[in-house]
Amino acid sequence: MTSIFHAEQIKEIVHKLDISEQLEQGFVAYSQNNVVVPPVGELVFENPPGDAHIKYGYIKEDDYFVIKIASGFYENHKLDLPSSSGLMLLFSQKTGMLVSVLIDEGYLTNVRTAIAGQIVAKYMAPKEVNGIGVFGTGIQGRLQVEYLKPVTDCRKVVVWGQENDDFASYISEMETKGYTVETTTDVETLTRQCNLIITATPSRTPLIQAEQLLAGTHITAMGSDTPEKQELDSEILKKADIIVADSIEQCLTRGEIHKALEAGMIKEESVFELGNVILQPNLGRTSENQLTVADLTGVAVQDIQITKAVYQAIREASGKQ
Amino acid sequence: MTSIFHAEQIKEIVHKLDISEQLEQGFVAYSQNNVVVPPVGELVFENPPGDAHIKYGYIKEDDYFVIKIASGFYENHKLDLPSSSGLMLLFSQKTGMLVSVLIDEGYLTNVRTAIAGQIVAKYMAPKEVNGIGVFGTGIQGRLQVEYLKPVTDCRKVVVWGQENDDFASYISEMETKGYTVETTTDVETLTRQCNLIITATPSRTPLIQAEQLLAGTHITAMGSDTPEKQELDSEILKKADIIVADSIEQCLTRGEIHKALEAGMIKEESVFELGNVILQPNLGRTSENQLTVADLTGVAVQDIQITKAVYQAIREASGKQ
Repeated sequence: MTSIFHAEQIKEIVHKLDISEQLEQGFVAYSQNNVVVPPVGELVFENPPGDAHIKYGYIKEDDYFVIKIASGFYENHKLDLPSSSGLMLLFSQKTGMLVSVLIDEGYLTNVRTAIAGQIVAKYMAPKEVNGIGVFGTGIQGRLQVEYLKPVTDCRKVVVWGQENDDFASYISEMETKGYTVETTTDVETLTRQCNLIITATPSRTPLIQAEQLLAGTHITAMGSDTPEKQELDSEILKKADIIVADSIEQCLTRGEIHKALEAGMIKEESVFELGNVILQPNLGRTSENQLTVADLTGVAVQDIQITKAVYQAIREASGKQ
Repeated sequence: MTSIFHAEQIKEIVHKLDISEQLEQGFVAYSQNNVVVPPVGELVFENPPGDAHIKYGYIKEDDYFVIKIASGFYENHKLDLPSSSGLMLLFSQKTGMLVSVLIDEGYLTNVRTAIAGQIVAKYMAPKEVNGIGVFGTGIQGRLQVEYLKPVTDCRKVVVWGQENDDFASYISEMETKGYTVETTTDVETLTRQCNLIITATPSRTPLIQAEQLLAGTHITAMGSDTPEKQELDSEILKKADIIVADSIEQCLTRGEIHKALEAGMIKEESVFELGNVILQPNLGRTSENQLTVADLTGVAVQDIQITKAVYQAIREASGKQ
C-alpha cells in the first residue's frame, strides 16, 4: 500500500533528523558515477507565467528510485499562494511499485540544499568562524545558517540585503533560533566581520569582490544556479586555493564556476567535486589561511537521498518498520 | 488541499462515466496542435529488468496539466505482484499547485486505450457488425470489447489466442458481461465471422493476411506500439480504403503504419489523424464495403483528458463541486 505524507508531517519529522550522512553518501555515489540522472523534464506556461520541472533518478543497485516534481508560478502571491509547489515520489527499484507520495510542497528541496551547505562547511570552512555572513534574506538565507549549527559554534550572523528586503522578519526568526543578527546593505560591513559566507540571492551581477574578503574566508555560493546568475566576481575564484562543485558537469554550464571558466580565470582541472572531497578530505581545507569557494547548483541525488531518509524515518516513527 | 484517490475509488467511478466526449475533444486538440507534449522521460533498470516512463503535457489555455508515471517490471509475477503500476498527477495550469494524486495503478491507461478503440469504431466500423474478432486474451482484448458496447449491438466475440493462453478466464469474464464467446487458435476461423477486428497482442510478426479478411472489415490495431511490433501484414494497409492514426507523428516510427511505410506499401499522405476524422466524419467510413484500419499507439492527451474527467467526476460525486 502506498503511504502518503503531507507537508506538516514531513516538516515535523525532518526537524528531528540528521540526514547529512545520507546526503554525503549520495554525493559520493554521484562522484563515483553510481547515480543515474536522465535529463530534467520541463513544462513552460505563459499565461500566467510558470514552469514545472521533473527531476528523477536513482543510485545503482539501491532499493528505490525517486521522481521529484517542482513548480514555480511567480504571480501566485496575487492569489495569496506560495510561488513554488511540488512533491516527491518514491518507487521500488525492484518492482516499480509506488511506495510513497511525499507532498512536501518544495520543503525537502529547501532542506537538502541547506544540508549541502552544511556538508561543504564541514570540509571547507575555517575552524574558527568569527561571523557567518549571509547574502539574501530569503528561505535559504535562513535555512543555510540553521543547518550550520552542527559544524560551527558561531551564532553571530551578518545579513546583507537590499533596502526594501524584509530584515525585520529575518531578525525575528533568526533571533528565536539563537543567533545575534546584524543587518546591512553594505558589502564590506559583512565581509570585514565574517570568514564564513553564504550567498543566496538571484543576482546577475557580482556582489562581492576579491579584495573585500578576509584571509581564510570560505564562501558557499548557492544562489547562482543558471547560466545567467552570478554572485561572486570571478577574481575570487582565481584567487581561491580550493574550488569545489557539487556537480562539475552542471557547474560547467551554470553558476560561478561557469562564469569564471568563461572569463578564463580558472581551469576545469582545478575544480574538485564534493563527493571526492568527502572521500578524500585532504582535498578540502588544510590550513586556516586558505580562501575556499564551493559552488552549489543542486543535484538530483540530494532529492533521492532526502526522500528515502524521510520516508524511512516516518515509517520508523509510526512503528511500521 | 491536494485530493488523493486510490485505485478502488477510481475504478468504481470510471465504470459509471462516459469519458468518450472528453477524449474526442482531446484528439481534436492534439490534431489542431493545441497540445504540448514534451519527450517521454525514461528510467531503465537491469536487475531485475524493468522500466518507468514519465509522460506529461497539457492542452493550451486549459485549467490543468497532467504528469503520468507508469512502470513495468516483468518479473513481478514471481512476487505475486502485477507487472505494471503507476499514477496520474493533476496540477493547476494557473498556479502550479498539485490538485490531485490518482493512484490508479495503470488502470486509467487501460481505459483510455479502450475508449480510443470505441471512438475509432464509432467513425470507422461498418454499421452491421456480424462478429467482433479479438486477437489477444489480455486486458485490452477484454476492455476493448466492453467499451464497444455504446457503438455496436453485436455481442458475439471470436477470440484468437495461442494454445497456452487463458481462454477459460476470458470466456468466463466476457460471458458475465453479456457476450457469447468462441475461442480459436486459427486466424481464418475468426476473420470469416468478424468484420470488426481488434488486434491486442505483442506480436512481432503479422498475424493477419489481407486475403483472409471479409469485405467491409474494420481493424483497430492497438497492440503494435513499438518500432518492432507488427500484427497486420502491410498488404492490408495497402488494400485499405481508409487508414487512420491516433498520432501521425508517432505512427511514422512505430506500429503498423511505420511498417507499411517502410515496406513502401503506403504513403504518409494517405494516413488521416483521428482528431481530423472526428472534426470531419466524412474522412471516416462512408460505405459498408470499405476496408478500414486504425493504428493506435497511445497519445498523452488521452491521459490528460481521462485524468481531468475522473477527478471532476469524483469531486462531483463527493459533493465538493
